[in-house]
Amino acid sequence: MIQVAVIGSSKALPEEEEYKVAYQLGKEIAKRGWIVVCGGRTGIMEAVCKGAKEEGGLTVGILPSYEGTEANPYVDIKIKTGMSHNRNPLVVASGDVVVAIGGNWGTLSEIAYALILEKPIIGYKTHSVEGLIQARGIDQILEFLDTFSR
Amino acid sequence: MIQVAVIGSSKALPEEEEYKVAYQLGKEIAKRGWIVVCGGRTGIMEAVCKGAKEEGGLTVGILPSYEGTEANPYVDIKIKTGMSHNRNPLVVASGDVVVAIGGNWGTLSEIAYALILEKPIIGYKTHSVEGLIQARGIDQILEFLDTFSR
Amino acid sequence: MIQVAVIGSSKALPEEEEYKVAYQLGKEIAKRGWIVVCGGRTGIMEAVCKGAKEEGGLTVGILPSYEGTEANPYVDIKIKTGMSHNRNPLVVASGDVVVAIGGNWGTLSEIAYALILEKPIIGYKTHSVEGLIQARGIDQILEFLDTFSR
Amino acid sequence: MIQVAVIGSSKALPEEEEYKVAYQLGKEIAKRGWIVVCGGRTGIMEAVCKGAKEEGGLTVGILPSYEGTEANPYVDIKIKTGMSHNRNPLVVASGDVVVAIGGNWGTLSEIAYALILEKPIIGYKTHSVEGLIQARGIDQILEFLDTFSR
Repeated sequence: MIQVAVIGSSKALPEEEEYKVAYQLGKEIAKRGWIVVCGGRTGIMEAVCKGAKEEGGLTVGILPSYEGTEANPYVDIKIKTGMSHNRNPLVVASGDVVVAIGGNWGTLSEIAYALILEKPIIGYKTHSVEGLIQARGIDQILEFLDTFSR
Repeated sequence: MIQVAVIGSSKALPEEEEYKVAYQLGKEIAKRGWIVVCGGRTGIMEAVCKGAKEEGGLTVGILPSYEGTEANPYVDIKIKTGMSHNRNPLVVASGDVVVAIGGNWGTLSEIAYALILEKPIIGYKTHSVEGLIQARGIDQILEFLDTFSR
Repeated sequence: MIQVAVIGSSKALPEEEEYKVAYQLGKEIAKRGWIVVCGGRTGIMEAVCKGAKEEGGLTVGILPSYEGTEANPYVDIKIKTGMSHNRNPLVVASGDVVVAIGGNWGTLSEIAYALILEKPIIGYKTHSVEGLIQARGIDQILEFLDTFSR
Repeated sequence: MIQVAVIGSSKALPEEEEYKVAYQLGKEIAKRGWIVVCGGRTGIMEAVCKGAKEEGGLTVGILPSYEGTEANPYVDIKIKTGMSHNRNPLVVASGDVVVAIGGNWGTLSEIAYALILEKPIIGYKTHSVEGLIQARGIDQILEFLDTFSR
């Protein structure tokens, strides 16, 4: 089963475009029978999990705490790490492919780990980093994912 | 969804009783609609995943490497950590309840973490540790899991 | 420089024998020009650091938090991990030799990791674990350390 | 004791300017009685440790492996993590201040963690990241460190 790591800010709000793109992406990942892997929290992580669940998909949250109470309500599988921000590399390592949407320093750390681990990665309105393709929209993200999965 | 962490030696062989108990346990976890969480490798981890998959269950392997190639063929969700043995606490932290079957030093480290994190835990032919109930067989393990889930 | 990992309960009090043995051990480690490595907190960790500092030794605390404010006042080098209990394996991995004094589940996890990593280890009034020598007192601990360092 | 985290590429060579700046920085850190904390390997890490040792300073290497054999010869204290690249956040978390010199994706991950953890950080010929001051040379780095330590 293909695992898609989706990374981005925990602060993105439902009315923001990044949230909407992540939500749409979650739906498309689920429709393809793939699995969402993320940090399990709010913002982009919530959006992609919500989208995936609405299409009957499966979602994994790799969480900062031991208790896992910070998980958004759309996380199916809770990986409770107790490692705080140090869980970031595990999110991208667990993706066969990585999508970065918006984001702040946590997302930048994850983009860096995706590049360290030589993961296929595409961004959308995220940090400008050498070697990171920036998609124009959801269509180009999906094209990248579909190409990857062939 | 209830997540059951199953821990034990990577060296247990199919002809050994511990392997058979883990395999049977995997089946019962799947029948109850619960999820198997384990270290994703051979031995007890393979046995419980194999049992779960034969009943249509879902299995999660929290793996030592970044590549995940050490996963047994019955692992659905691969959490690739790159943390070697340091991934052990994540396995028990991710269980709502923990079952220890047989095992060596890795299993002892996981039992210790289960006790640190105050997880409900039951053992079978595993390390004798204060505060760890030793089940007589699969029935008592299931009774413990069923009591827990009520 | 030889690094001696000293593990044990954060709850040991100065009036307890285990605390006194750890304090004495800290002095002896420092006299030999070796380095104390520990979890950096209270109890046994404080005792061994205090002893070492009184003899002009050097102490390292591998701490659970990112901030390091939980360090006892006798820690020189602060390794701030943000990994909570998951920092335990790093303490024993960083010792060329390991001494376990008293202790609870955290100490048991560290003993298990010492055995996983095949470290020379000696205990004093600690968990009874196969393969772990229990010293009768400080003299036998020092004999073990001196033998090891030759 | 002030701990200065120095991060940068493991591939920098002695004839390169970044290596020379890191070497000079190591000397200055040692002269001030501060401690070098780094990833303990080659390149920039070796340069800063070498400089520090030539001035009688103390160096800490937070290493990827459990064995620590990858440490450069100028590392005094070896923190052996077994966590591969996941040890990166520990390097910056353990610095009271962070200096980034040159570098590749590993360095970018460390810069991101420095920003997540709100560490004072200065760069030299490193990744262009919002919020990261780029020094013109060793003098400006030292000015930053001296200001910080007052």
